[in-house]
Amino acid sequence: MSHNTFGHLFRVTTWGESHGPAIGCVVDGCPPRLPLSEADIQPFLDRRRPGQSRFTTQRQEPDQVRILSGVFEGQTTGTPIALEITNVDQRSKDYGDIAARFRPGHADLTYTLKYGIRDYRGGGRSSARETAMRVAAGAVARKLLGPGVRIQGALVQIGPHPIDRARWDWDEVERNPFFCPDAEAATLWTEYLDGVRKAGSSVGAVIELVAEGVPPGLGAPLYGKLDADLAAALMSINAVKGVEIGDGFAAATLRGEDNADPMRMENGMVRFGSNHAGGILGGISTGQPIVARFAVKPTSSILTPVPSVDQAGNEVEVATKGRHDPCVGIRAVPVGEAMLACVLADHLLRHRAQNPDAQGEARLPARG
Amino acid sequence: MSHNTFGHLFRVTTWGESHGPAIGCVVDGCPPRLPLSEADIQPFLDRRRPGQSRFTTQRQEPDQVRILSGVFEGQTTGTPIALEITNVDQRSKDYGDIAARFRPGHADLTYTLKYGIRDYRGGGRSSARETAMRVAAGAVARKLLGPGVRIQGALVQIGPHPIDRARWDWDEVERNPFFCPDAEAATLWTEYLDGVRKAGSSVGAVIELVAEGVPPGLGAPLYGKLDADLAAALMSINAVKGVEIGDGFAAATLRGEDNADPMRMENGMVRFGSNHAGGILGGISTGQPIVARFAVKPTSSILTPVPSVDQAGNEVEVATKGRHDPCVGIRAVPVGEAMLACVLADHLLRHRAQNPDAQGEARLPARG
Amino acid sequence: MSHNTFGHLFRVTTWGESHGPAIGCVVDGCPPRLPLSEADIQPFLDRRRPGQSRFTTQRQEPDQVRILSGVFEGQTTGTPIALEITNVDQRSKDYGDIAARFRPGHADLTYTLKYGIRDYRGGGRSSARETAMRVAAGAVARKLLGPGVRIQGALVQIGPHPIDRARWDWDEVERNPFFCPDAEAATLWTEYLDGVRKAGSSVGAVIELVAEGVPPGLGAPLYGKLDADLAAALMSINAVKGVEIGDGFAAATLRGEDNADPMRMENGMVRFGSNHAGGILGGISTGQPIVARFAVKPTSSILTPVPSVDQAGNEVEVATKGRHDPCVGIRAVPVGEAMLACVLADHLLRHRAQNPDAQGEARLPARG
Amino acid sequence: MSHNTFGHLFRVTTWGESHGPAIGCVVDGCPPRLPLSEADIQPFLDRRRPGQSRFTTQRQEPDQVRILSGVFEGQTTGTPIALEITNVDQRSKDYGDIAARFRPGHADLTYTLKYGIRDYRGGGRSSARETAMRVAAGAVARKLLGPGVRIQGALVQIGPHPIDRARWDWDEVERNPFFCPDAEAATLWTEYLDGVRKAGSSVGAVIELVAEGVPPGLGAPLYGKLDADLAAALMSINAVKGVEIGDGFAAATLRGEDNADPMRMENGMVRFGSNHAGGILGGISTGQPIVARFAVKPTSSILTPVPSVDQAGNEVEVATKGRHDPCVGIRAVPVGEAMLACVLADHLLRHRAQNPDAQGEARLPARG
Repeated sequence: MSHNTFGHLFRVTTWGESHGPAIGCVVDGCPPRLPLSEADIQPFLDRRRPGQSRFTTQRQEPDQVRILSGVFEGQTTGTPIALEITNVDQRSKDYGDIAARFRPGHADLTYTLKYGIRDYRGGGRSSARETAMRVAAGAVARKLLGPGVRIQGALVQIGPHPIDRARWDWDEVERNPFFCPDAEAATLWTEYLDGVRKAGSSVGAVIELVAEGVPPGLGAPLYGKLDADLAAALMSINAVKGVEIGDGFAAATLRGEDNADPMRMENGMVRFGSNHAGGILGGISTGQPIVARFAVKPTSSILTPVPSVDQAGNEVEVATKGRHDPCVGIRAVPVGEAMLACVLADHLLRHRAQNPDAQGEARLPARG
Repeated sequence: MSHNTFGHLFRVTTWGESHGPAIGCVVDGCPPRLPLSEADIQPFLDRRRPGQSRFTTQRQEPDQVRILSGVFEGQTTGTPIALEITNVDQRSKDYGDIAARFRPGHADLTYTLKYGIRDYRGGGRSSARETAMRVAAGAVARKLLGPGVRIQGALVQIGPHPIDRARWDWDEVERNPFFCPDAEAATLWTEYLDGVRKAGSSVGAVIELVAEGVPPGLGAPLYGKLDADLAAALMSINAVKGVEIGDGFAAATLRGEDNADPMRMENGMVRFGSNHAGGILGGISTGQPIVARFAVKPTSSILTPVPSVDQAGNEVEVATKGRHDPCVGIRAVPVGEAMLACVLADHLLRHRAQNPDAQGEARLPARG
Repeated sequence: MSHNTFGHLFRVTTWGESHGPAIGCVVDGCPPRLPLSEADIQPFLDRRRPGQSRFTTQRQEPDQVRILSGVFEGQTTGTPIALEITNVDQRSKDYGDIAARFRPGHADLTYTLKYGIRDYRGGGRSSARETAMRVAAGAVARKLLGPGVRIQGALVQIGPHPIDRARWDWDEVERNPFFCPDAEAATLWTEYLDGVRKAGSSVGAVIELVAEGVPPGLGAPLYGKLDADLAAALMSINAVKGVEIGDGFAAATLRGEDNADPMRMENGMVRFGSNHAGGILGGISTGQPIVARFAVKPTSSILTPVPSVDQAGNEVEVATKGRHDPCVGIRAVPVGEAMLACVLADHLLRHRAQNPDAQGEARLPARG
Repeated sequence: MSHNTFGHLFRVTTWGESHGPAIGCVVDGCPPRLPLSEADIQPFLDRRRPGQSRFTTQRQEPDQVRILSGVFEGQTTGTPIALEITNVDQRSKDYGDIAARFRPGHADLTYTLKYGIRDYRGGGRSSARETAMRVAAGAVARKLLGPGVRIQGALVQIGPHPIDRARWDWDEVERNPFFCPDAEAATLWTEYLDGVRKAGSSVGAVIELVAEGVPPGLGAPLYGKLDADLAAALMSINAVKGVEIGDGFAAATLRGEDNADPMRMENGMVRFGSNHAGGILGGISTGQPIVARFAVKPTSSILTPVPSVDQAGNEVEVATKGRHDPCVGIRAVPVGEAMLACVLADHLLRHRAQNPDAQGEARLPARG
């Protein structure tokens, strides 16, 4: 991960500002002869798109993706895949205030201190809009991984309200505007978040990601660990402040006996009796589901005025009216899934480069 | 981060197995004319060294570092700095059992599934011994950062027992065997951990890292964010299962008003009234202290037998006798500090490459 | 250099096929606050554009570049600069034959053997059309380098006809369709190349590049040598088969006495009496002009039938009618300049990351 | 290629100075379960070792390599392979003069201008001694490539005296002290080089490398071209001033008809009637032998005094007495072979990561 490029062999470079003419990305290193069209990508973008419920910003971005290169007669060619979305909802008239003032919790100040200049329109490069390209790249990564690898995400907590994991139902995730796997929690959250929204406030959230069908062996000691790359990938999403694998921070409270995942043989494969490890040991996938969580801070744009400063060094107060997600964590679900897909795709390529004979299942080698 | 190399401009490549003839690292990209000798590195290694209290493994590794290149007449030359530690305590006789069996919670199985071979002696490459080289590299990074950047770490929780943050005293950290900043907690932990140790059990921990004096502007959108690289760096340490920046997972529970860090001017500088952000906004340092935490799982080597399998596919039970840390989180403190130092050093170089005129303090540019 | 990305800190990623909807590139790592508009880039593209004389292909590509990101109010912002050119002259009707047959000397066969698929329209990704984006990126690199670094290229040989170096005149380069610095040679070449063209044949060429005003100290031992990166950059241009620095292959014939560049002091600076080294010693710039040459093979598309095979494994003959440069070396001049500019820009950033106090001139340090 | 690391997946990081305690390298990314011991590496080091004839420096470096990690029970483990050679012939007393004066043609001045400091003992990091580690890494790369890929090098020109290619005999290469494939040329060179040596002079050389059995498909458009990476690899060797692939600079003089390599089918494979391309088209291997040449300048250390300057800015004259190769090109033969091996190993891994189904022979896919 360096600057605006992510990945080692499956490499994604994104570009574009919230209110520029377009945003885009280049996906390099994708294997050839994968069937790919805009129709494979668009559904994932549609899931992330704002304006689909009253709990996400009312900006209307059709987010129509175009493939500009790397696909020929419906198949990838092995050359760079350029994806692009034209920006159509650029309300540049809105940005008088933001141009001169640093919004607390945003990147306005840090971009200014780093670069001495910033594109203040809609947050410029630091806008959550960039995550659309992550989702697009993630759709390509899923094609590479194939149907055997199932990547899903869910919102498991909004503000202080976690789901009840006993009620987890993946089907439920697509039935409510929160990607929530617990129908009762979704009902409760509706009321709760309506209150937050009407108060012009915001709240944080926790997202859980699960990848099933991941072959064992992905990841590389010691600085290319699967969990290290995944941590970076998730932490690179806007507003993320924490990342966990498996039991995560809860593991710190456990005794060794309670954290151990026992192993047994089953049909010639090594199987586990539990998954505290979240599918990764020593930085390498075990074959169990990869489980990761990440925490998103509350949207920084709120109605309550917060003391700040302006470009000229005056002390001011900043309050944000207008179109903002009361909980950016909701739309972070498809973004997190996409980053997980990209990390797995990259490591799948890296793994088979070094280990072309690896079996892709938890079968013990004749010797070891 | 790729394979066994960490960093983009300040690059650390480590090598070596627990029971091989030596371990080492190459630090490439270090600026020239920094005063450097073994005496600058050894104290950090000594802090991490096992066998200093009954709460860490009783292996006796003198861990005497040698500088083999890149330093001339007491100064760095700008060429690669090779650091090496000869392994002296190699009890290879101990490894009969481990050779054939996969220890639960360790990388034994995943290395085997990935590579079809593993150096089972002391965990080979996956041994915590490798972290000695991180600490050595971190000492070089500190030299680069200079005395203005102060990096400290502390253990803030052992098992279910957190410190009382009201009693935080940095001086206390060096006075107890836990790197604990709360004297009372240290007393309580002594008794608690003695019980864990005598039971042949183990427990997890949480470490907090603070870097003060970090100039604003470090970090790069979007995949080279300071917090993304830091998350990868910390997650790459053995046994780490979670990473947080600033308020971390607690931020998910907050309302926007409670998470906002107000800004004001002070002597021409932008200052903040709080630090929920942990010193990073939009992936770029604000000039406030960088605050990160990471969770370490309980040591997997415990006396209680855990079902497992062996190399031949037989179901077995694995129990570990002998020299092991009841809480690997303790010695993770200097390791975490070192990784933070390396990340900051790398980003300092990257920042000044692109922004040679940046002021290194939170002073607003004439225009922006 | 990896896949479709070039450079370490000043990073250029290109994408696009000859007959796709567009080609483009992303320039990442560019410093902020450089004045930049399409008008800074277009003139360099116009120099490379086909159809400007009878010695280059008659395709009409307006090659109008658009900046899609990374520039705000006329200045770079430090975020990725996306450049794009819409393809307008896509005569897809022409490609019946090429679709099924492998053109000798082209990448048709190797792309097929590697990827099992190729975009045959106009050569797809392997088309010289991609070099337009190198030229565009090079224009950005020149902005970064500033007016103190002057990069020029010239054609010094066509087929067996070299220029007379005694007649070298940089002003002449812009006065003839060959970028030839020797007016007499240009006249001779006109007649010669007319003959080649009318015969449906083609011929190779040698290009010389000179960069003046390059500060000493650029380059890094040992695998980031300035000349190593330059060799890769030039060899990555289509049809290039050789690269030289300074005296190049001629140096192999010399005795040590004849190859030595004597040094002296002049106004406190180290100056050289000759430049056999081409401005680079030990992989690091000396402050003298950087001099490089590269050889371009004859255009592979010729009227003479050449035995080949087709996709189905039949033996066929391939002859190429139509719009092709009789000497692709001519348009390689601005491409070579651009690659040199990109390499220097990248190394300037890398150098000042590690050596912020370097003086940028050949003045000896107080100690060393 | 960046700083002191070479390669993308098969990564070699070297360290060490000529007169430091040791030199070494870390080979990362090597596949597991390759049989490897010091005995596989030592013969290649012995070929490069100085002091084997009167035409190479009389320094006595036993160059005994040790494997310090990454090999277990005679097999690679997939973890970093650390190789190390202790320096035993450190005549530090010799370096009084060199400490203060910049030797013309060497890196003394440029290291000083870049870093403000240099390890002057034996050239420090810029010494040809570093190439021993390239040779060691190359031996590992050969293991990875397997016996099907045959890499050989030969000296084809010394000073103005080329070999007669009609007399090329690979067996001859090991029979004379020049790695010369032409027995008559070797006899002539003996007399010629004796004269050069006795005069305290030096002379340049050209080396040719051939790799047979390379599967088609290695290399990646456009900045990871096989020839681009090879050009960088060879240009990174000390004293190299030019690199060619296939016909190289001679291709510039050819007409298209004369440069075309006709294709035909043979046993279901695509075969070529000639190899002007040197086995690479569009940056990707064709399956034909890879042919590359590189030019080495005359050794800069000569008896004839050359005007120079010293550290204090005084004008001086530098003449070099003592142990130096009259033609460094001779020992560059095994170094060039090693770099070619490393480039091929890296690209083999990169290729199979993206194209796991590629057949490794020039057989046309069912469709394409």
